[in-house]
Amino acid sequence: MTLQTTDKTRHEEPARPRDADLRERAALVIPGGMYGHLNMGAMPPEYPQFFASANGARVTDVDGREFVDLMCSWGPVLLGHHHAEVDAAAQRQAALGDCLNGPSARMVELAERLTSVVSHAQWAMFQKNGTDATTLCCTIARAATGRAKVLVATGAYHGAAPWCTPVTSGTTPEDRANLLRYTYNDLDSVRAVVTDDVAAIMVSPFRHDAGYDQELVDPAFARGLREICDELGAALILDEVRCGFRLNFGGSWEPIGVEPDLSAWSKAIANGYPLAAVLGNDQYRAAAQSLFTTGSFWFASVAMAASLATLDVIERDDAVTRMRTIGEALRAGLAEQSERWGFEVNQTGPPQMPYMSFAAGGDVAARFAASALRHGLFLHPRHNWFVSAALTDADLELALSATDAAFGELRSAGN
Amino acid sequence: MTLQTTDKTRHEEPARPRDADLRERAALVIPGGMYGHLNMGAMPPEYPQFFASANGARVTDVDGREFVDLMCSWGPVLLGHHHAEVDAAAQRQAALGDCLNGPSARMVELAERLTSVVSHAQWAMFQKNGTDATTLCCTIARAATGRAKVLVATGAYHGAAPWCTPVTSGTTPEDRANLLRYTYNDLDSVRAVVTDDVAAIMVSPFRHDAGYDQELVDPAFARGLREICDELGAALILDEVRCGFRLNFGGSWEPIGVEPDLSAWSKAIANGYPLAAVLGNDQYRAAAQSLFTTGSFWFASVAMAASLATLDVIERDDAVTRMRTIGEALRAGLAEQSERWGFEVNQTGPPQMPYMSFAAGGDVAARFAASALRHGLFLHPRHNWFVSAALTDADLELALSATDAAFGELRSAGN
Repeated sequence: MTLQTTDKTRHEEPARPRDADLRERAALVIPGGMYGHLNMGAMPPEYPQFFASANGARVTDVDGREFVDLMCSWGPVLLGHHHAEVDAAAQRQAALGDCLNGPSARMVELAERLTSVVSHAQWAMFQKNGTDATTLCCTIARAATGRAKVLVATGAYHGAAPWCTPVTSGTTPEDRANLLRYTYNDLDSVRAVVTDDVAAIMVSPFRHDAGYDQELVDPAFARGLREICDELGAALILDEVRCGFRLNFGGSWEPIGVEPDLSAWSKAIANGYPLAAVLGNDQYRAAAQSLFTTGSFWFASVAMAASLATLDVIERDDAVTRMRTIGEALRAGLAEQSERWGFEVNQTGPPQMPYMSFAAGGDVAARFAASALRHGLFLHPRHNWFVSAALTDADLELALSATDAAFGELRSAGN
Repeated sequence: MTLQTTDKTRHEEPARPRDADLRERAALVIPGGMYGHLNMGAMPPEYPQFFASANGARVTDVDGREFVDLMCSWGPVLLGHHHAEVDAAAQRQAALGDCLNGPSARMVELAERLTSVVSHAQWAMFQKNGTDATTLCCTIARAATGRAKVLVATGAYHGAAPWCTPVTSGTTPEDRANLLRYTYNDLDSVRAVVTDDVAAIMVSPFRHDAGYDQELVDPAFARGLREICDELGAALILDEVRCGFRLNFGGSWEPIGVEPDLSAWSKAIANGYPLAAVLGNDQYRAAAQSLFTTGSFWFASVAMAASLATLDVIERDDAVTRMRTIGEALRAGLAEQSERWGFEVNQTGPPQMPYMSFAAGGDVAARFAASALRHGLFLHPRHNWFVSAALTDADLELALSATDAAFGELRSAGN
């Protein structure tokens, strides 16, 4: 880290004319100025709405402020922005062709690679959105079982289609008529709602509901879900969209020995190139073959080439261990700082996807995040963070220097 | 066109080892070997399943066969494969960043551009799939009206999510509980099903149901739909996913003077880069703002940069007129050939999206398509074709030479 880089991460000057101009223009031509998870309207005003570029573990907003990145584009970036080998693979494929009259060999190669890497998987299908993948898992489970109901955990996020969006505006009761709710890590709550019309139980590798402390899966809960699905003849669907390849090179529940029937993947599968996938076992192959689902860009080759390169680098560099090591160092630093500054915090989730809440509640987390942002660290006060394998020791040092300053500013403000 | 190129489009050798090998491998790791609209399983065996590359109006399969392309990747490619200006714009943006912690300025620029180009549009939202866009239009209409029912034409394709997929395997009755059906170009059939719970009427710019002769919209039908929606206080949704920017630079119904409230776009909007959009008027802005919909890659900038360049080139080069002129020449050539060879055919749809059926029915269209393919022309026997603006006179000459040979082979075979 050069002094110059450090200087670019100190933002004394509050005026951010480019972001302000774009927000004004966006308000005219985009409902609410922005939508979905990237709407920064409810974030502290220091947060930028618009970004210019990114490299490695650094992102730069439209006003030239550079930040150490602890959001990784909300998950898709695992190896760091502009990873040279991933981008080179994508460019090689782009020179041949992307969206053609049919798939290229990349699709077969990627299906072969994923089914060899993820132990439960015997086949693959590709899409564009994580929501495409979770929705398709439900459809396949229904086709296989001839049943309608799908169990999801209360508060879990499985996408933004009408059946699963957390905001019901514009949806109909029929969109959710076949959903049943259970409590994460509570087998009794699952048993209380199962009926003989259950097609599937959908579950995340750990509980990562936005705005709540995260909760790792109890292995006995995972094993219990597997047993219940086997008893019912229902599909166990693992929603890997957010966690996939961050917790384990392979399925996220492989270390605890529980295999789903179907799994939904997206986000980091191609290090930021747009791709999603459904993986399944042979018990669900005929059902997957019986339905019609497709998309204009689902078979395009560039994102698949990027995914092949991403998987190679994750495996070769043991990126999972690297992310865990960095995440543990970040967590240790935050623990030391919070104790030294006298703040009661709760750090939850796997180190690769850390989250920190303040016992004091209120707007403390938001003010901490805003302060860290002013000191050059981009994190989120209500959503889990993401560690990329590109974070260098210098990035980590800057990150912890920003959080130390943020704790200090909170303390100075009388918290 | 060089002799060498012509030679590459003559395929005397039936062995296609790469495609055969990939199909075998795909059968192991992809349900049915392939899925969706790009599954070539039901096509004549001459058709390749896997492609290697494309350039301009030519596509090349994995065994090196080159074809004049009349499918344009089923719609996304409007300016031809690898359009230099579009690719350069995408590469410039890729060098900065694609999937960042938030959108870039490209999103605002594209929303401004689309709302200036499409007359009914006062705001824009972006997605990845055409299905995302048609689904979101329904959600916005429901949020605005507080009603549930959406009218769609019998046989119309509006996407492949459970509510609209043409194959019901794995879907539930609830997925379609709020759909009502009318007959395209038949206002009485619309009036027969409307109730006071109608949120929207969805319609395609013309009737382009796969496997049927195409039918242009009756302007009186379009005006009648607008009147019925106004009477009901329901949204008129134009599904531009397949036609967008092929029939008109602007909305497809602007030439007949009918403005929808909401329109769904995808396919050619970025000349093959993955993007979709919903455009709407101010009456539906608050509803669009009230709901939560998002995707990990929806805000990514490369496809938006490609779309900005695509729109510039379509406008500057009057690509719509170019496509129409080529399509008319193709149609005239097919008319002359079919008459000369003594085949009764029906050519329907706009010249930019032509379709030809045989009065004889049966497998004649499939055998014609297979024969044209052997002579270097890629078209589809049951789905409308797409003309790109990149088709040169030499491409057209080769295309008509292939169709002439195909008519001749049909005749020789005793049809």
